[in-house]
Amino acid sequence: MPRLAFDAEQLHLTLDDGQTLAQHVLWLQDHDPARRHANGQRLDSVLDLDWDAAISEAALEEGDVLRVTLSNAREIRYGVDELAALSTGFPDERSSAHKTLWQGSEFSVVRVEWADVIAGGEALRKSLACVRDSGVVCLRGVPVEPGKVLEVIDQFGYVRETNYGKLFDVRTEVSPSNLAFSNLGLGAHTDNPYRDPAPSIQLLHCLSNEVEGGQTLLVDGFAAAERLRELAPESFALLTRTRVPFRFHDADHADLRSWVPFIETDHKGNIRQVRYNNRSIASLPLPLEAQRAFYRAYHDWARVIGQPEQATRLRLAPGDCLLFDNSRVMHARTAFVAGGNRHLQGAYADLDSLYSTLNLLENAR
Amino acid sequence: MPRLAFDAEQLHLTLDDGQTLAQHVLWLQDHDPARRHANGQRLDSVLDLDWDAAISEAALEEGDVLRVTLSNAREIRYGVDELAALSTGFPDERSSAHKTLWQGSEFSVVRVEWADVIAGGEALRKSLACVRDSGVVCLRGVPVEPGKVLEVIDQFGYVRETNYGKLFDVRTEVSPSNLAFSNLGLGAHTDNPYRDPAPSIQLLHCLSNEVEGGQTLLVDGFAAAERLRELAPESFALLTRTRVPFRFHDADHADLRSWVPFIETDHKGNIRQVRYNNRSIASLPLPLEAQRAFYRAYHDWARVIGQPEQATRLRLAPGDCLLFDNSRVMHARTAFVAGGNRHLQGAYADLDSLYSTLNLLENAR
Repeated sequence: MPRLAFDAEQLHLTLDDGQTLAQHVLWLQDHDPARRHANGQRLDSVLDLDWDAAISEAALEEGDVLRVTLSNAREIRYGVDELAALSTGFPDERSSAHKTLWQGSEFSVVRVEWADVIAGGEALRKSLACVRDSGVVCLRGVPVEPGKVLEVIDQFGYVRETNYGKLFDVRTEVSPSNLAFSNLGLGAHTDNPYRDPAPSIQLLHCLSNEVEGGQTLLVDGFAAAERLRELAPESFALLTRTRVPFRFHDADHADLRSWVPFIETDHKGNIRQVRYNNRSIASLPLPLEAQRAFYRAYHDWARVIGQPEQATRLRLAPGDCLLFDNSRVMHARTAFVAGGNRHLQGAYADLDSLYSTLNLLENAR
Repeated sequence: MPRLAFDAEQLHLTLDDGQTLAQHVLWLQDHDPARRHANGQRLDSVLDLDWDAAISEAALEEGDVLRVTLSNAREIRYGVDELAALSTGFPDERSSAHKTLWQGSEFSVVRVEWADVIAGGEALRKSLACVRDSGVVCLRGVPVEPGKVLEVIDQFGYVRETNYGKLFDVRTEVSPSNLAFSNLGLGAHTDNPYRDPAPSIQLLHCLSNEVEGGQTLLVDGFAAAERLRELAPESFALLTRTRVPFRFHDADHADLRSWVPFIETDHKGNIRQVRYNNRSIASLPLPLEAQRAFYRAYHDWARVIGQPEQATRLRLAPGDCLLFDNSRVMHARTAFVAGGNRHLQGAYADLDSLYSTLNLLENAR
């Protein structure tokens, strides 16, 4: 039997398991179940709160309904379970506090069969949960046909079209005419930091990979940021409070510019988004006295990201489709040598719809 | 003739107009024009900086080329104008510091003819610049045909598709069966705070508006936040550091959840994004001791947003299409009474592409 205590301003309800729900009279008014639509939307504004109202009576009816009477005669009823659920709410699943961080050397990307994913249910849930929790999943056996990457997005959300199109090709035909530039490695980076909002999901679908080398590296940027905080706390702090400019300028087609931090934290210090891209960082208009410390921090960040133990390595085979959180996971490619073609198709989407689809699947469990 | 001074670590170049460019040896290495691709992308990583290199010589050649020689024998050349441009960079145009804030009572939404916009050039530039600077523009004479709102987006960017579709209908047929819910006013709000990333542009295209009442109100959320900072600095500060949960739950179709602040500032205190939506704020799992202060701040924010002098009012006529920055501008609708139909089509897009299109038009000037 729950125990109840209250005064004019506060109410304490101790449940049978020892958990105490402690709410202010303003909170109790604001969460009144009778003032919510069936879908949970609120009918009142915060301006409807009565700041003069005190709790004049509170009682448990039939053990599981809390009835609160206010001095203005308003009566509010909560089921005890309902009050417990409202008091807990839902977690901030974008925060590093709710992620499984990984050091690449101890981590293997989870692989899920595409045939199972399109059948729906548990394989779909599992693959989306991988993206939420570890930031990445590899779908295996996605048909080797151009445009299939868009069908992958259809399973959970919506394409984020950009100036690169609905999808884009990362194609390298190893031939003398383009050998010089086509087979270079690319350091670990997040895509499109010059966009704000940046696409929060990236997909890479492998259509062919006949080269030697050309491995894909992935780095958990949240784990890298935690490593930076440990190794160089001043550099970490400086990067969270400094915005840097990024730019992508393609003559007549785009001039994209942003001012964003490398590492975004919430007020508890948890990480929520990381960025890094050495190619598209723009000119840094820093006062002279700030330059050395900034370069120290920027250098420390790049060094942590590039540490071999941060990365997990995999070789994409035709039919593999990587699906990853571009606000967290950095990707890279090692250099490669002749041997044939390498063709990936990429596309962007957003985490909001992926989480929504996942929430629906988990609600139904 | 520019004047030059340097020591091992720093270089100061005073231009003819008195402006001094002051850069550290690390900055000078990092911005080396010879280490950038023609499109401005960097070829080097910050890890390529030589931390032991000192400036051993610096000279102006022919008055407008700066040649810097480092102790490691590397030579770096900058055009003086180029160095000045790199030292200035581009501004953070998403920040309130670069916006024209408005009090609604003194502000009228700029109207631009759609026929001029699709002709391209200055009318398109002007309308996009209105969105960047004041947060909103009204395009006039957009053909009264379903789907036209998507053609408006084609002028500057890409549709952000969501669970509501590529576009959505805000349709109210005034009839006894839906009168009760259909003609209610809606308080000022930003759309979709339960998405992260939230769509940063919203469009509303009026196809018919035969009702009495049903005015559209717009509030500059950046100006409202500045007003809050002035009137209740503690409430302002609390809201910038507190994340609140939003949720939209539609049975089998969506369960969108976010944890985001009402007011986002940068480390200089400038405002970069605001949110407010009394209907979709979710249950607040706040510790008891934090509740009263949070409700005070939330109440103050709602009160400022709702002050009549914050809003500008307009009546949308068929063919009007509002285009506004959903990270800044709040919209509302007054209640209305019978008289006919009211039908708007809405859609979302993003600021990154709008700014890119605008940058290209302004580069070309």
